[in-house]
Amino acid sequence: MVGLRHAGNPRIPDTTVRRLPVYLRVLSELSGRQQEVTSAELAERTGYSSEQIRKDFAYFGALGTRGVGYRVDLLQRQIRSILGLDRPIPAAVIGAGNLGTALARYSILQDRDIQVVALFDVDPRRVGTDIEGVKVYPTEELPAVVRQLGIRMAIVAVPPEAAQAVVDAAVRAGVTAFLNFSPVKLQAPRHVHIQNIDLSLELQSLAYYVSARSLP
Amino acid sequence: MVGLRHAGNPRIPDTTVRRLPVYLRVLSELSGRQQEVTSAELAERTGYSSEQIRKDFAYFGALGTRGVGYRVDLLQRQIRSILGLDRPIPAAVIGAGNLGTALARYSILQDRDIQVVALFDVDPRRVGTDIEGVKVYPTEELPAVVRQLGIRMAIVAVPPEAAQAVVDAAVRAGVTAFLNFSPVKLQAPRHVHIQNIDLSLELQSLAYYVSARSLP
Repeated sequence: MVGLRHAGNPRIPDTTVRRLPVYLRVLSELSGRQQEVTSAELAERTGYSSEQIRKDFAYFGALGTRGVGYRVDLLQRQIRSILGLDRPIPAAVIGAGNLGTALARYSILQDRDIQVVALFDVDPRRVGTDIEGVKVYPTEELPAVVRQLGIRMAIVAVPPEAAQAVVDAAVRAGVTAFLNFSPVKLQAPRHVHIQNIDLSLELQSLAYYVSARSLP
Repeated sequence: MVGLRHAGNPRIPDTTVRRLPVYLRVLSELSGRQQEVTSAELAERTGYSSEQIRKDFAYFGALGTRGVGYRVDLLQRQIRSILGLDRPIPAAVIGAGNLGTALARYSILQDRDIQVVALFDVDPRRVGTDIEGVKVYPTEELPAVVRQLGIRMAIVAVPPEAAQAVVDAAVRAGVTAFLNFSPVKLQAPRHVHIQNIDLSLELQSLAYYVSARSLP
């Protein structure tokens, strides 16, 4: 199945892209139970507004029928296709310390769409071991292994001072999407997408809810 | 210094709260170098629009001067106070496996605002050990330790099937804010805030950028 966006669809905004997996999760809960779903039902289950949902779906040409809504199976297929999840995506975890190991294990055991096929680490004690059957390679072999296994996505879980160098090497070898857990702003060419998870920012915004709601 | 929001300010929307730590980071980079900053400069450094920034700041009464902007030091103090960061916040990490250990270590070493003062785990081999000097307690002692150390914030890094029970226990002991890494939807009373980091959703939305941008 050819991704719909490759047929000349306009580019979908990042904010819409981030909501698509949430729709997918709700649709997967609904599938088998009902054939159609309205934007109002999706709004109740996702917390987004009906208007937002209809607008998001219109980006890839999914138009609901008034009073009936959207076909659950069709919508699932469309969203999976838009996201490129119609076939498994080979991914790497760079850094096999506590965080990298936890992320790799989680992804290997829970995720069928993203397949972690390699980990990388500089520590000789970790190299050659495996996490749930997936091998830890030396970081110096990253370019060769990325090319060989066709890896296009990477999770970055190395110390901040090492992050830019591993991203540079991975980009040169063909990786175009990164999930970065290192607390550092990474540079990359325009065609590369870096999504950052910054624990400090998360905890600082969470602090608001500690003090705001726990005072009498 | 009394938090500004306690003086009868309207509640700040969640979306604004999530931007406040980003402003704080930029202001901290600017402080010492310049005394004032315009919303246009902040827009350039954060990626948010000037209109959005002025609107965010107006929630807590920070009004810029036309052509001059905002005072960097004052704005920093106001945002820290709004977030409740004017004194350290004692926090716990629940689950001392790979993920919990990595998160605790990161937070202990990098974060001065949030102080991880305890970890909890059910595994007797982990209980009694320490992570960077912070003790791992048995999960059954969570209520007592949370009360004793005045813990109000917790990072949840336990297997999904254990998450709801530890959150229930922590809420009863007084925790009001959670950062949840378990892939499960947690229930909590209305006064409790739960921020979820869901690796599957992050990776699925990231998949869009693999296929969309790497095809010719």
